[in-house]
Order: sequence, then structure tokens, then C-alpha cells
Amino acid sequence: VKPIAVFDSGVGGLTVLKVLRSRFPDENFVYLGDTARLPYGSKNPKTIRLYLEQCLNFLNHYDPKAFVVACNSASTQVTEDQWMGKPIFNVIDPVVSIANQSSQTQRIGVIGTRATVQSQVFSKKLLDLNGAAHITEQECPLFVPLAEEGWVDDPITNLIAFRYLEKIRKAQVDSLILGCTHYPILAHSIQKAVGFEVQLIEAGPAIANLLQETLLIRTNENSDTVFESTGELKILVTDSSKHLNLWALNLLGLPDQFQIEWVHL
Amino acid sequence: VKPIAVFDSGVGGLTVLKVLRSRFPDENFVYLGDTARLPYGSKNPKTIRLYLEQCLNFLNHYDPKAFVVACNSASTQVTEDQWMGKPIFNVIDPVVSIANQSSQTQRIGVIGTRATVQSQVFSKKLLDLNGAAHITEQECPLFVPLAEEGWVDDPITNLIAFRYLEKIRKAQVDSLILGCTHYPILAHSIQKAVGFEVQLIEAGPAIANLLQETLLIRTNENSDTVFESTGELKILVTDSSKHLNLWALNLLGLPDQFQIEWVHL
Repeated sequence: VKPIAVFDSGVGGLTVLKVLRSRFPDENFVYLGDTARLPYGSKNPKTIRLYLEQCLNFLNHYDPKAFVVACNSASTQVTEDQWMGKPIFNVIDPVVSIANQSSQTQRIGVIGTRATVQSQVFSKKLLDLNGAAHITEQECPLFVPLAEEGWVDDPITNLIAFRYLEKIRKAQVDSLILGCTHYPILAHSIQKAVGFEVQLIEAGPAIANLLQETLLIRTNENSDTVFESTGELKILVTDSSKHLNLWALNLLGLPDQFQIEWVHL
Repeated sequence: VKPIAVFDSGVGGLTVLKVLRSRFPDENFVYLGDTARLPYGSKNPKTIRLYLEQCLNFLNHYDPKAFVVACNSASTQVTEDQWMGKPIFNVIDPVVSIANQSSQTQRIGVIGTRATVQSQVFSKKLLDLNGAAHITEQECPLFVPLAEEGWVDDPITNLIAFRYLEKIRKAQVDSLILGCTHYPILAHSIQKAVGFEVQLIEAGPAIANLLQETLLIRTNENSDTVFESTGELKILVTDSSKHLNLWALNLLGLPDQFQIEWVHL
């Protein structure tokens, strides 16, 4: 059975993969983390597009049934619905759609890397859906290294979250988009900093809903079901780091002997 | 007059360039920051060596009189004294030499990125010089993003420094090697965390001393003096980020209209 290809600049997209595996336990997945070239967040859009194309073309060798670009920085450069004739999903559109549905007050916050926030991609798409939305954006460059350091629900992380999210808190949003796939790891610190009444909206569940709708329709047409697959998992990285490999296995609950493959694009 | 080529994975090496320019104000410099592929710190040694070679070969087009690898992660992969027939300096050897001279108690600390610390390059070289040295190493992965965020002499940075440096403080070192070129930016927080009696040893002054000895000898032999040059400066980056460009200009005290050039290797 053809796998679902999940791409990220590094290991943050594993939070999306984790949700997808738990929602679709029998699906096959191939994950590519471009760890040799992370972070994409600080890079120029043209560079990001170039790297994205290289990675999608590499993943295409696994003959996936769909591509999921589980990286917000890379998602800003996904301009098509199909890649090599297969559906491609970015993580921005489904998150924007859910944020728009979830918000009662139309006051929505967005946090992400510097590149994602400066691109204003979330606010532009939110305003396309709802011109009356009041959007507050904040870049949080230290969140990715904090998540990768494993300082989760830590007093220092809480302090940094409190500082970064002051503007969001003051804007009295009722929904906050976690515009970076690393951020669900810090969800508890973020939630404390903005208040427990604020709804956090993350990519994993949003993209899982979209895949379930889209791929079930496709598989029904092909007399095939999504759930017949054997649940194989491949994790590929463009550079191998002992720390990030262990971090990845821990996040996904995989055994230490699971082999993360080092590939060259 | 031939420039001195300074290479770093990103913008941290600018702390070295800053010291070199202030020590040799009339020298020409060409700086290459491989910002498209930073950070090197988390990458595999083989990948770092490949990138280093590409960058040195690119810098060689400027016909430099010497190469300075102002990046500790890349310096771990410099195994030769000459590159393309020109002297090449890494930032590790001169720092190790000064630490060994400066320490009275032979208790020396080393801080750096995860890759630099895990390579144990500083402790191996220190022990080669002085088998009786007692070395304590600590990786500090958040220091680079904190420096790039501009959170200098900040309560949060002080807290993080205090946490990272607890082991160093307890080891009662009298000298501490700042084994990453970003770290001088956070020197005040680091100094507070380890105590003001500890001598911080950084790459810039160490490499400046070595260049002065070596290049003055060379230039005397060639009837040329180091100080006749016109003090031109070129800064090249493999990816252009508005935030890091402004940060670089600010660090070096350059005017906003100074052009940082975007190059493709």
C-alpha cells in the first residue's frame, strides 16, 4: 500500500506524524526531515522553495499516495494542489479554516518562526476567509530550540512564553494558531501564558481531518480502503544527529533500536 | 592588497572579525557566512567537512593571504595548516594554547554547541598540552539563538546561563573557554553565572595574536607590510535574512546602508 509522505525541515513535523499515526494506525508513512538544512524558518523564501522541491522529488521515489508538508515555513511555498500528480497538503490552510470556525470573537492569534510570521501568510489567509477577523501575530524564535532542548513545562520556558505571548494575551484572542509544528511540544507553557480559556489550534488534528476526508474518498473510488495498510513507518533524515534521533524516537514512542535512515538528496 | 578570509557557518564569526578589524584596522577582510546551512553545530562531522571545503574554495576566488575558520564546529574539521597553498587558522588551537597559559589551577572549563562539546576537541587538545589539566565541558545549545534574539544581559539569559553553567561553577575552574564564536555576545551573563574571578577565553583575541605573529613574518619576507592595506570589508552570506543582516551591521557598528552580499556556492 502506498505510504503517505510527510515532509518537514527537521523534526518538528513529527508532532504531525504522531497525530496521523494515532488517527490512522494502519497507514504506511514515510517521513523526511531535511535536518542537514534546518531551520527553514530563518531562510529566504526562494531558498525554501528550492529545498522543498528537492525534498518532494526525493519522497516521490517512495510512490506516496499523498504529500503532507508538515512545516509551516515550507508550507508558505506550496502553491499547488498536486505534486507529480498526487495531492499535496500544506499545514496552513486546514489550520486557518479551523481557527476561523473555532473563533467566536473573531480575535485570533498566530505564533510562529520569524519567517512564517513575517510572511503574514496566516493573517492574509484568515482575512481572505473572514475580512472582519482581528489578528495578532508574534514571532517566537526561541521556541524551537527550547522544544529540541527538551525543556518542556519548565520554569524558564514558561518565562519565555510569558514574554513572547504578552501581546497575544493583551489582544484577548479566543483562538491561537500554533504556526510551527514544534510548538505543540510546548503547548502547556503556551497555554499557561495565554490563559486556559484560549483555544490552541495545531496542525496535526487539522491535517488529519483533511486527509481522512480526501483520502477516504480517493480510496473508495479505487476499491481500496485506507485501513488495510500494514502501518509501516520509515523516518529519513538528511543529516544524522544522535540528540535529535533520540528526541524523535522519544516523541513518537518508538524503541531505541528503531533505525532512522540517513539519506542524501 | 590581499584580504584575510574569515569563514563561519553564520554570523557568530563576526565577533572574531570585529576583534580582527579593531586590531588590524587597515587590513582588508572578506567574510563568508554560510547562513543558508547554519547551524553547523548540530550537523554530522562529514557534512561539516564537506560544507567547509565548499566555503573555503569559494573564498579562494578572492585570493586571500590567509583563511581564518572562525567557527568552532567547522574548526573541528580543519586538519591541515595550508589550504590552496595559503595558511589556514582554526579557532581551537590558539584558544587552547591561551587557556593552558592562563590557568593557574589547571582547572579549565569549556562551553560550546552540542557538536563541539561532544567532539571533545577542546579537552583532547588541552590534555595533549597538559596531561594534568582537569577539564569540565558543558554544551549550551540555547546560547546561539539567545544571542541572535538580542537578549543580551537579560534576566532570562542570566537564568539560562546559570542553569547551563552550574556544573562549570561547581568545578571551580579558573579559566573558561567560550568554545563558540557567538558566546562573547553573552559574555556578561556567562561571567555572572561562573563568577567574576573566572577568566573567559574567546577566539577573537587569540586568533588576532596568532595572525599578527604569522602574517607580519610573512609580509616582512615579502617586503610588504600588513598595515598598508586600505581596510576594505566584504561580507558575504549564502542566504539573506533581514534580521541577521541588521544584527550583523549592529554588531560591527556598520551603517544601515552597508551592503551584505548574497552569494550562491
